[in-house]
Amino acid sequence: MMIVMKEGATGEQIDAVVKRVESVGCSAHLSRGELLTVIGAIGDRDRVAGLGLEGAPGVDHLVPILKPYKLASAQFRKGERTVIEVDGRKLGGEHFGLIAGPCTVESREQTLEVARCVADNGATMLRGGAYKPRTSPYSFQGLGVEGLRLLQEAKEETDLPIVTEVMDARDIEDVVEVADVIQVGARNMQNYPLLSEIGRAGLPVLLKRGLAATLDELLMAAEYVLKEGNSDVMLCERGIRTFETAYRFTLDLMAVPVLKELTHLPVVIDPSHAAGRRDWVQPMSLAAAAAGADGIIVEVHNEPDEAICDGPQAIATERFAEYAEQLQRVVEVAGKETSTV
Amino acid sequence: MMIVMKEGATGEQIDAVVKRVESVGCSAHLSRGELLTVIGAIGDRDRVAGLGLEGAPGVDHLVPILKPYKLASAQFRKGERTVIEVDGRKLGGEHFGLIAGPCTVESREQTLEVARCVADNGATMLRGGAYKPRTSPYSFQGLGVEGLRLLQEAKEETDLPIVTEVMDARDIEDVVEVADVIQVGARNMQNYPLLSEIGRAGLPVLLKRGLAATLDELLMAAEYVLKEGNSDVMLCERGIRTFETAYRFTLDLMAVPVLKELTHLPVVIDPSHAAGRRDWVQPMSLAAAAAGADGIIVEVHNEPDEAICDGPQAIATERFAEYAEQLQRVVEVAGKETSTV
Amino acid sequence: MMIVMKEGATGEQIDAVVKRVESVGCSAHLSRGELLTVIGAIGDRDRVAGLGLEGAPGVDHLVPILKPYKLASAQFRKGERTVIEVDGRKLGGEHFGLIAGPCTVESREQTLEVARCVADNGATMLRGGAYKPRTSPYSFQGLGVEGLRLLQEAKEETDLPIVTEVMDARDIEDVVEVADVIQVGARNMQNYPLLSEIGRAGLPVLLKRGLAATLDELLMAAEYVLKEGNSDVMLCERGIRTFETAYRFTLDLMAVPVLKELTHLPVVIDPSHAAGRRDWVQPMSLAAAAAGADGIIVEVHNEPDEAICDGPQAIATERFAEYAEQLQRVVEVAGKETSTV
Amino acid sequence: MMIVMKEGATGEQIDAVVKRVESVGCSAHLSRGELLTVIGAIGDRDRVAGLGLEGAPGVDHLVPILKPYKLASAQFRKGERTVIEVDGRKLGGEHFGLIAGPCTVESREQTLEVARCVADNGATMLRGGAYKPRTSPYSFQGLGVEGLRLLQEAKEETDLPIVTEVMDARDIEDVVEVADVIQVGARNMQNYPLLSEIGRAGLPVLLKRGLAATLDELLMAAEYVLKEGNSDVMLCERGIRTFETAYRFTLDLMAVPVLKELTHLPVVIDPSHAAGRRDWVQPMSLAAAAAGADGIIVEVHNEPDEAICDGPQAIATERFAEYAEQLQRVVEVAGKETSTV
Repeated sequence: MMIVMKEGATGEQIDAVVKRVESVGCSAHLSRGELLTVIGAIGDRDRVAGLGLEGAPGVDHLVPILKPYKLASAQFRKGERTVIEVDGRKLGGEHFGLIAGPCTVESREQTLEVARCVADNGATMLRGGAYKPRTSPYSFQGLGVEGLRLLQEAKEETDLPIVTEVMDARDIEDVVEVADVIQVGARNMQNYPLLSEIGRAGLPVLLKRGLAATLDELLMAAEYVLKEGNSDVMLCERGIRTFETAYRFTLDLMAVPVLKELTHLPVVIDPSHAAGRRDWVQPMSLAAAAAGADGIIVEVHNEPDEAICDGPQAIATERFAEYAEQLQRVVEVAGKETSTV
Repeated sequence: MMIVMKEGATGEQIDAVVKRVESVGCSAHLSRGELLTVIGAIGDRDRVAGLGLEGAPGVDHLVPILKPYKLASAQFRKGERTVIEVDGRKLGGEHFGLIAGPCTVESREQTLEVARCVADNGATMLRGGAYKPRTSPYSFQGLGVEGLRLLQEAKEETDLPIVTEVMDARDIEDVVEVADVIQVGARNMQNYPLLSEIGRAGLPVLLKRGLAATLDELLMAAEYVLKEGNSDVMLCERGIRTFETAYRFTLDLMAVPVLKELTHLPVVIDPSHAAGRRDWVQPMSLAAAAAGADGIIVEVHNEPDEAICDGPQAIATERFAEYAEQLQRVVEVAGKETSTV
Repeated sequence: MMIVMKEGATGEQIDAVVKRVESVGCSAHLSRGELLTVIGAIGDRDRVAGLGLEGAPGVDHLVPILKPYKLASAQFRKGERTVIEVDGRKLGGEHFGLIAGPCTVESREQTLEVARCVADNGATMLRGGAYKPRTSPYSFQGLGVEGLRLLQEAKEETDLPIVTEVMDARDIEDVVEVADVIQVGARNMQNYPLLSEIGRAGLPVLLKRGLAATLDELLMAAEYVLKEGNSDVMLCERGIRTFETAYRFTLDLMAVPVLKELTHLPVVIDPSHAAGRRDWVQPMSLAAAAAGADGIIVEVHNEPDEAICDGPQAIATERFAEYAEQLQRVVEVAGKETSTV
Repeated sequence: MMIVMKEGATGEQIDAVVKRVESVGCSAHLSRGELLTVIGAIGDRDRVAGLGLEGAPGVDHLVPILKPYKLASAQFRKGERTVIEVDGRKLGGEHFGLIAGPCTVESREQTLEVARCVADNGATMLRGGAYKPRTSPYSFQGLGVEGLRLLQEAKEETDLPIVTEVMDARDIEDVVEVADVIQVGARNMQNYPLLSEIGRAGLPVLLKRGLAATLDELLMAAEYVLKEGNSDVMLCERGIRTFETAYRFTLDLMAVPVLKELTHLPVVIDPSHAAGRRDWVQPMSLAAAAAGADGIIVEVHNEPDEAICDGPQAIATERFAEYAEQLQRVVEVAGKETSTV
């Protein structure tokens, strides 16, 4: 941590800061410029942060130098990339994962039809929501346990691993019986009790970035899972909130190369929620693959016009083959291979 | 809902939309301009929204006309304002609430000292966190049940009602034994299972706006509480995330007059988290009161330099009297009265 | 324009709005719902907007239906795409333009060396700044007329058309003697006198999106150029300002498919300014091409470590061949062809 | 400037950075932590920034320590505040300025009527636009020189100093004959040639913050004016662009206390453009005064329903007395005095 003193900070103020830094077992290193002094606090970042020096006399501001996350940092694995393996499918490193399926599990017919379609066209895993976070309490909230049962049936028929969301720690027990990957939605990215419990559940996690979360905060959320001994976390960018209103969310593809530098964890892109319209999902999927993403999680529906939730952004099953093929071409240019069994 | 058709939409496409609107029991009303046609769908907003018409052939975009919240809307109470009463203290309407106390309950001495100070200087309620959502899993996470016990002691000594946060539905049972108002933090504003359970707990709720939540989304989150039969919700603006980095969050005081028009619920401002520095907390508190807020929730500490959490933004107990007095002068200009017993 | 009345608006208030709409030669069309009334104002959008009905008694809010731009709209050219041709090079439709060169013209050697490199590796045009908008008045402001002379020399040697920025209407005369495309920087996107004068200068224009400009505002800025009779405008997305601080600007690639739907004008992406670091420029360039962009404008330098301005984001000349080749592969997947002579 | 090296940066990489820092006459100061090394570059900030070290081998990122502005910094005037005096009126320090008038000069009657009203009710200066930046080229662009003539007439009648906007450097000559304060609009905050010329014009300047400009960038824009020898710059916050769509812009009142710490220049708030609706202008005006602003610039109209531009946000002349009186009460609590002659 660098502590930048104000211009005109007195020697006493500087000494006081040095003493407080040393009081938590860190060492202080002074750098005196012409106009002001910077104090480098060397040692445990969290201890220095805990001193609350931002408000101390003579202090202008603090600049963190070390990253706040440890287990998630690229340095932690010395440059090696995490590859997540589920039932023989891989995601991360050179392995690209195409995770596809309906937004919400609505019915047996819909679930199976979509599952068969994506399985036939090279999907790596099947996505589908049984518990749905909805902005309105008056909207359909998901089929719950019955939805999980339908996902189980789809898995048995297609052999595709299942990715599904948990919103409430009390549902984890039910979900782990069916799911192969637990999804944490954007609204729950900083639901810390949930993250910790999911970390203990032992399954790989797909963690969506909150719509105003910085990349550092996303990595800190991953750290909550990792610190429970679960090292299989996929980070998922799904659009951030900005001033632009011409589409739903701004898909932040710059997150892909930046996260690849900061962390060893794989990065997955969800183009469906950001676009909100199926016409825009394909170009953004290709862009994500070209940017170097390790995977895509995309919504597919057999009858998008009749979908209970988010139909306008779902790719129709009859167009999925063409979509997957086009995506495959860009995945190859990016030097990856889509993982299937 | 207005459905704006694309320029050049065909008669068949228009007819198809009309049929789908009518299929959910709504009526469709055509408005043909020189360039394009707008279809007004009259009836239940949620049913029309559920049709997913955004992706239908010939449709350009949808414009919602009715607000998505019902119980929270100003119309629901026909212009009357909700006044929340706790142990004789009132907040809302002409009653201004000064909610003050430590960010986190750290120790018996700290809690009691701060509680006495704010009680002596006209506070309406005491705030203090026993469960703390922290960005880092390595930071202090609160004293938990022991913290609740200390709040209980402070309440017994000062008679101040207690405002404290719940992060996990499984803690509600413990919290309701002590708390008079349950706080939902910004990170949990869209934790729907938590909102519903808190709605059923029967205590007034202080609901903080998520840092990228629109005012409509804040009101929808309140709706999750209200629909459980709990009509005592205070909305709390605590800073939104913007591009500016000169301070922690952008305090959105425009939310005060706008929310007063949209809803009957009282609006409280938290100036501490947005500012991040105690020098800036006082001007923003005065500004909030001048804008017409129904209350302030502010952090106070007996030894801010030693605080475990957010010390730099806490007002020192020795300066609180002056702070409260200055605030009082603006509250009066705004035509309100600070509520004490 | 749809005028949404408040719940409880009186018949008199509705009549008053109707009269004002009719007073500017438009017709009003009422749509009465259960809770409220919507008035469709049919006719010239600008006239209705000019009435300022937002503040009128009983009015809740206005919803514009027609787009504010006319010449820039996709409808104006009935779905045909604008292809801009400069000295035999084309950009737009199926023609992809690779515009490359130094951020700033610094010296004869630098300019010529970079120009030769990009010409040899398939660039469509040469970019280079003689007038530089700098955040600090103490930074290097560009070589001015001397810079233009060097660009002229580079053009004579390589035959590449020149793209260069104008910041001051009084420099247009000098610039048009050398430039083939005039660039308007993000900071000047809403400098209307400049846009109008550049519109009259007769050269194609590359118009950068302001860092907080909506896509509609970008199109309105283009409209200022188009209305002067100049139909050759390339729209350039160069990163928008958001809360994220892990990189310089958030590159909004969603703008590509959305603009393609809204307008006939070609869309160019500048990945250099958003990334701020050359490692991230290549993945974002590939992503832009995959998303369907009509061109890339990228910074290249012969000695990036010595560059006066923005060196860290410049691609080194010795790596440009590889960059261009990789880009070419994605351009092909996207169904376009890079235009050279 | 602090240069943070990557973990694992080699001794050679560190030496190379040190050499480059020293090559521009600065000294380098090493601070070696357990995990990484930070190099403090002591000396001229701009020279070090000019090295472009962000891309150098082994460098992780740069942290600027010194503020980029000099003449605008609070230190430059050693804590003394700039008070701007115009015809005996003062703004800054303890002097509060109420600048009021029409958005746009529309007619003789309108201009004089509004001018008399605000003069009679304690306004410090008269605002009014003769040249109007408009998003649409099809909107009314202002009366130009004729508008200036009307402002002159209003000034002669009321003795109020005139604040009016310049968009084009070529209009400065005409404007200075009438204006007492030159306004630079938000869209032109980074129009550097314009800022420099206005700096040379010799009149006080009211500089509006761009809608995505950081406070540092606002101060850098002021620096362009100050460096021309003109020290009378008022900084004006008028709303920033965020994700919220419930109102026009987010009025950033936190800018008031923060700017007061960073600079000696006075801070003025424009509540009209952010609110967009007159009901919300009064609470935000009071909030601005309570936050410690040095002035308000507010729109007033004699017939707001007939205004050519921004009528919905204008306060009606018949309500201005009440508005000014209420504002006055908060100005007093804030310890200031409204300046009139």
